[in-house]
Amino acid sequence: MTTSVDTALIQSLDSAHFLHPFTDFKDLSSRGARVITRAEGIYVWDSEGHQILDAMSGLWCVNVGYGRKALADAAHAQMMTLPYYNSFFQTTNVPAVQLAARLASLAPAVGDRSFQHVFYSSSGSESNDSNVRMVRRYWDLLGQPRRKVIIGRINGYHGSTMAGASLGGMSGMHAQGDLPIPNITHIEQPYYFENAIPGESREEFGVRAAGWLEAKILEVGPDKVAAFIAEPLQGAGGVIIPPSTYWPEIQRIVDKYGILLISDEVICAFGRLGHWFGYEKFGYKPDLVTFAKAVTSGYVPLGGVMVGNRVAQVLIEQGGEFNHGYTYSGHPVACAVAMANLDIMEAEQLPQKVCGDIGAYFAQRYAELNDHPLVAHAETCGFVGGLVLVKNKKTLERFHADDGVGMVCRGHCFGNGLIMRAVGDRMIIAPPLVMTKTDIDELMRLIHLALDRTLVDLKARGLV
Amino acid sequence: MTTSVDTALIQSLDSAHFLHPFTDFKDLSSRGARVITRAEGIYVWDSEGHQILDAMSGLWCVNVGYGRKALADAAHAQMMTLPYYNSFFQTTNVPAVQLAARLASLAPAVGDRSFQHVFYSSSGSESNDSNVRMVRRYWDLLGQPRRKVIIGRINGYHGSTMAGASLGGMSGMHAQGDLPIPNITHIEQPYYFENAIPGESREEFGVRAAGWLEAKILEVGPDKVAAFIAEPLQGAGGVIIPPSTYWPEIQRIVDKYGILLISDEVICAFGRLGHWFGYEKFGYKPDLVTFAKAVTSGYVPLGGVMVGNRVAQVLIEQGGEFNHGYTYSGHPVACAVAMANLDIMEAEQLPQKVCGDIGAYFAQRYAELNDHPLVAHAETCGFVGGLVLVKNKKTLERFHADDGVGMVCRGHCFGNGLIMRAVGDRMIIAPPLVMTKTDIDELMRLIHLALDRTLVDLKARGLV
Repeated sequence: MTTSVDTALIQSLDSAHFLHPFTDFKDLSSRGARVITRAEGIYVWDSEGHQILDAMSGLWCVNVGYGRKALADAAHAQMMTLPYYNSFFQTTNVPAVQLAARLASLAPAVGDRSFQHVFYSSSGSESNDSNVRMVRRYWDLLGQPRRKVIIGRINGYHGSTMAGASLGGMSGMHAQGDLPIPNITHIEQPYYFENAIPGESREEFGVRAAGWLEAKILEVGPDKVAAFIAEPLQGAGGVIIPPSTYWPEIQRIVDKYGILLISDEVICAFGRLGHWFGYEKFGYKPDLVTFAKAVTSGYVPLGGVMVGNRVAQVLIEQGGEFNHGYTYSGHPVACAVAMANLDIMEAEQLPQKVCGDIGAYFAQRYAELNDHPLVAHAETCGFVGGLVLVKNKKTLERFHADDGVGMVCRGHCFGNGLIMRAVGDRMIIAPPLVMTKTDIDELMRLIHLALDRTLVDLKARGLV
Repeated sequence: MTTSVDTALIQSLDSAHFLHPFTDFKDLSSRGARVITRAEGIYVWDSEGHQILDAMSGLWCVNVGYGRKALADAAHAQMMTLPYYNSFFQTTNVPAVQLAARLASLAPAVGDRSFQHVFYSSSGSESNDSNVRMVRRYWDLLGQPRRKVIIGRINGYHGSTMAGASLGGMSGMHAQGDLPIPNITHIEQPYYFENAIPGESREEFGVRAAGWLEAKILEVGPDKVAAFIAEPLQGAGGVIIPPSTYWPEIQRIVDKYGILLISDEVICAFGRLGHWFGYEKFGYKPDLVTFAKAVTSGYVPLGGVMVGNRVAQVLIEQGGEFNHGYTYSGHPVACAVAMANLDIMEAEQLPQKVCGDIGAYFAQRYAELNDHPLVAHAETCGFVGGLVLVKNKKTLERFHADDGVGMVCRGHCFGNGLIMRAVGDRMIIAPPLVMTKTDIDELMRLIHLALDRTLVDLKARGLV
């Protein structure tokens, strides 16, 4: 199948009119953007006809794969019935209600926490703004207005609004635009490869890394801390998978000080880690759960917050009007597409596949990458995988940031029909959950090919 | 046409699971939400079969009306071709590029300002976060990092993220969640009815109200002011239409001090004021233009910023990587729906209708409301209208806030087949741009009916 797109024309218009996210506009202009024109299953095609295995699921979102007619049909039907209506003024719509009820039924209660309520937005960023506002409102209503501080993590990602970028711990984002906003602070991430002391086991490191939260709470003052926000595993930060000891110790600390726990599951929810929600995988008890992306598999923008009973009861019973919300909170088309998306996930048992047979095969094949001369610490969790490109496998000596080794590898991926993301010296993937064993074999073949070409390239430059 | 929705069941699930935007959850639970189930043209229907003329276009967004098959078809086709792909990593997609080029072609240059570039988001809120980040980045790159302060207006509305709610001047929002964030301050709104001095003409008041900006700039320090943000006319604040002298004087002031001008056109763009953009109506020269809502007529969430040449050149030429953006920046389905929506607007010449014959008829019929005993200052601008409910038409004595007169009137609207919004003692509308003269007659009949019943109600309570 060919496309009729005039690549040069689109590139020229792109350069003249479209300011891309997280991009050096001038640099992109000088190269010309790759034009992605169509997609089917786990593959996308560009305007030059190249077929590319999308091992990033768009951007951690297309969990059911591309080309799903049921989702297009759901959007069409809802648009013809009720394409939009607001939920501000004592009105509601059927898909928003059905989805809220369904999400509540999918989110398992843990201990004394249950999730019966949903606050909708259109993105993870907006949802985390909702979290900040709900958390502060919660403590105000409880007569503890001094509890304003939210603790996040260095290299965590919580979106790109002013508040989202503040909660996140990306130094490049903080360097632009006077961030973070007040009363947000950060602790170091649980990145074993980078932050462990020589000789320290993963388990020992996990407990020590969680301890940074307690130290920060004591530094800020326990009566001033409102909440801790974290991803189950850090996605955009480079797939940083915490040691098994990390979350239980975090739970002990937030319980000890009574602070709220926000689980940002924009990446991890909806089957990505083999469960409907990421907190199930790691067994902790959040009070608020941010979701977006895979709730619609990215076909229509939708996000929200699962509001646990602890917070919901206070807001409902004591709150009066909550002066917050978005035009598209509970958008009927977005919610209808989400329902169709969840139908597919349930019918095809995608979370079960990820935590079952297929997930195990993916983990096993991915672990084999540890044999590659450039690779260290290749590991998976559910259907995400990450590895470090190292200069020396024995000493684990790392490349210099200026070597741009991740970008080199990403170039060889794209050039050979694979989308894999680079985060510094880490290469990461989050493939669609519909991958078969045959697909995984092809994915691994392409990863090996890209790594081999990267090695040749780096050798030629005298870097290894 | 009937619906098969079980109202009681949906209301019960709604109450149990859906936390509505800007709502007293407990109060709504006790009443039960009205379930909007379908829509066609300018009408929506609820689950009990009531037909309601939607004079708010959903929430200022459904400019082309409901039930537009071309938009549903565009969404379906794009979902089957490419339902999502990101624009982060040197890739682009055709609808995002086409829409950016088209928006650039629709936005007229004014003076030395032209609009060639678009930065995408999924909402007005997110877009205003992008504005804050772009504005501060702009001044940093120009070596004036002290220019951080953005001036907004009391009763202005710029969204509900932490930054959006901060830029806006809604006291109820500022009271919840530690707002505004730093380096945002506000001036009084140009609301003639409330803020004029006795005997002051609209024109005199407009100049004086604009002067509050200069006073604030001098108070903050001209070298610390980054930008002024304002809606062409205040929408959510209650349709506050500025005097004709206001914007020229604002323009003189921002020019004098060299500060950036952000025009938040989430409500006013795409034909609402009879032009593609609201700045055309009032003849000023913004540097950044926020858009959302009607760009897709609300069928799919989409927003963005038209980045004028003054800011774009600096970001592109000197900026390097701009560390900001959203997963759904340039969402292909949202952009494809926007293209189909603009096709309709162009084919049916909706902006032209609003600034032509139909708009004039709407203005004339709406002005007749000034004859109603409860009404003062009924006025329109394009296809928005606002009026004040007054206790005494001669003295212009106002109702007490506790009388809840707007809510009483809104109840009579809903109860008699009309959606009109209440903002304190103001009743406001923003009907779909596809209204015919016959539709306008019916709209006016319903408004009169609601006002009459409100009058009866208020008389019975001894309030008039």
